[in-house]
Amino acid sequence: MKQPITYELLHICKQTGARRGIIHTPHGDIDTPVFMPVGTQATVKSMTPEELKEEVEAKIILANTYHLYLRPGEKIIKEAGGLHKFMNWDRAILTDSGGFQVFSLGPLRKITEEGVEFKSHLDGSKHFLSPEKVMEIENDLGPDIMMAFDECVEYPSTYEYTKQSMERTTRWAKRCKEAHKRPEEQGLFGIVQGGMYKDLREQSAKDLVELDFPGYAVGGLSVGEPKELMCELLEFTTQFLPKDKPRYLMGVGTPDYLIEAAIRGIDMCDCVLPTRIARNGTAMTWNGKVVVRNAVYERDFTTLDAECDCYTCKNYTKAYIHHLIKTKEILGVRLLSIHNLRFLTKLMERVRIEIENDNLLNFRNEFYNKYGY
Amino acid sequence: MKQPITYELLHICKQTGARRGIIHTPHGDIDTPVFMPVGTQATVKSMTPEELKEEVEAKIILANTYHLYLRPGEKIIKEAGGLHKFMNWDRAILTDSGGFQVFSLGPLRKITEEGVEFKSHLDGSKHFLSPEKVMEIENDLGPDIMMAFDECVEYPSTYEYTKQSMERTTRWAKRCKEAHKRPEEQGLFGIVQGGMYKDLREQSAKDLVELDFPGYAVGGLSVGEPKELMCELLEFTTQFLPKDKPRYLMGVGTPDYLIEAAIRGIDMCDCVLPTRIARNGTAMTWNGKVVVRNAVYERDFTTLDAECDCYTCKNYTKAYIHHLIKTKEILGVRLLSIHNLRFLTKLMERVRIEIENDNLLNFRNEFYNKYGY
Repeated sequence: MKQPITYELLHICKQTGARRGIIHTPHGDIDTPVFMPVGTQATVKSMTPEELKEEVEAKIILANTYHLYLRPGEKIIKEAGGLHKFMNWDRAILTDSGGFQVFSLGPLRKITEEGVEFKSHLDGSKHFLSPEKVMEIENDLGPDIMMAFDECVEYPSTYEYTKQSMERTTRWAKRCKEAHKRPEEQGLFGIVQGGMYKDLREQSAKDLVELDFPGYAVGGLSVGEPKELMCELLEFTTQFLPKDKPRYLMGVGTPDYLIEAAIRGIDMCDCVLPTRIARNGTAMTWNGKVVVRNAVYERDFTTLDAECDCYTCKNYTKAYIHHLIKTKEILGVRLLSIHNLRFLTKLMERVRIEIENDNLLNFRNEFYNKYGY
Repeated sequence: MKQPITYELLHICKQTGARRGIIHTPHGDIDTPVFMPVGTQATVKSMTPEELKEEVEAKIILANTYHLYLRPGEKIIKEAGGLHKFMNWDRAILTDSGGFQVFSLGPLRKITEEGVEFKSHLDGSKHFLSPEKVMEIENDLGPDIMMAFDECVEYPSTYEYTKQSMERTTRWAKRCKEAHKRPEEQGLFGIVQGGMYKDLREQSAKDLVELDFPGYAVGGLSVGEPKELMCELLEFTTQFLPKDKPRYLMGVGTPDYLIEAAIRGIDMCDCVLPTRIARNGTAMTWNGKVVVRNAVYERDFTTLDAECDCYTCKNYTKAYIHHLIKTKEILGVRLLSIHNLRFLTKLMERVRIEIENDNLLNFRNEFYNKYGY
């Protein structure tokens, strides 16, 4: 069978073991490690596709199955010709499975072996998602990479519950694989769970690898546990994943976590952070966070980041962006979103270079000193 | 004295008397009649300057003195090097005087011969604006065209009050002229008032023309009176204005009013309408209004306007824009703002051609049939 998603390993950093590679997709190649901007509702908040291509140089973006299932509904997107056409994005797309969102609903959802019953956060209407239903939705949406339906347990969770849940997630992954109708066009990734328990992580990884997916995600990390524990579990987990398949750490987007993930052999990360903090008036820069909403920037006629060459930093002062954020003007959110996404793109570009130079550990230390971690 | 703002008359439409001309400003030439997008808080809502130039082809935009005086404060904009530099816009800018906003505050303001005391709509703090203070603010902001401080009376108002107010506005216009510190760089326009009373309009126009401003606005129209009355008063008023100076009808932005204004010899109009209705999910098109927020467009995979060549119409369907508006995504507002502003630019381009062809009346009738007026 033709595989829509393949991974090409180019180099392993001698200092860290980090992987420099390329993911081949039906909508273009992706240099890895890569940060993927999130477009929850079929739009990366405030951005056009052209800005994502030209300013951010994004090669792949995410969209959320749960949100698109509720609005506008996957059938409308299918009628539109799929997500790429619907949102006018001709590069790669990855959709999550909705698992994380559904389980975040807390008392609004009920889990059984069959699937999850939940009430919409929008109107309280009842819905049921099963592995089969999620595959149908993701097949309709038509992303390049689709995630299996999993359960992401809370932190902390008991060993007993985490084990039960992880084993169910594996059974669901198998059902997903069987229900997936377009395996030659869309790559289905399995998601390793197992909470904070190493033996469960190992079992989850091995069982999923047995199912032979074209890629693997590590889920259920960065959910509130200390950074050291996250790093330890990530390092422990990736050793069980195949070297010739891409590895995706879900929901990670702070600069330090991105670097730590790369060091532990991760190829892909995503997070809403850069666009979310943009809406709150915060920029990530090569000299640390700049809360441009703060009054201290009212008369600051310098740019956000002297080392940045993005549209925002080429054209606008902190004083102007401060004014836009204070007056709730959309352009303020736009300018900060462009900058923050560009910053992460440039950070990952740098990470890739440092891997090629076998120098990622040195870079991490320098970066932490400078960025203030 | 060198005049920063001059008007060149190119042609008068034989069918209507409409004027085709050019306004020369320190920041470029403006083909007239022109529609000016409004950037109340030093940003045309949701748009970058590049989009205004490339997509909308705007040659001049407005900003609001009242809003900028309150936030960020005109001194900060002066320190930034003026409004053009602050907001990264190198074409022409016109600022209103804040009069309209202050008088709209109703019980929050008190008018005397000296000026107006008012409470900020933001925090209730007390402020005082006089003609001299407004000139100081507009000199600090540094637009190409600045408006004199006037009072715009409500509709309806008594003859007695309107007369008093109009005469005060004329006295204020004189004080503005005397207080204006940069007459070689910024053109100060007088504003004709006089409510719905022809003799007061005539007196106002004649008294202001006596003061010899480089341009004149007609204020206090389109404030709730019937369209026929607006047209009648406008036609009556413009006859008293000099032929060699630009004429600006304040606050008008519906397609039919723009055409009627041109027919009555108006060169410039402005309105928040195109960006405001964008935020409510409405598009102006060559076939009338399209309320794309309505459910009927959920599955409409055609573009907003088959006759439009804007970025939005080249790339997106009504179904996608509908989805973005329903989910309150910023991109939806952006796409509709681009389209609506472009539509008005193209409408005025067409109006200029029809003036040159002595055909504006025929065009108006065709347009009304098609647009549904």
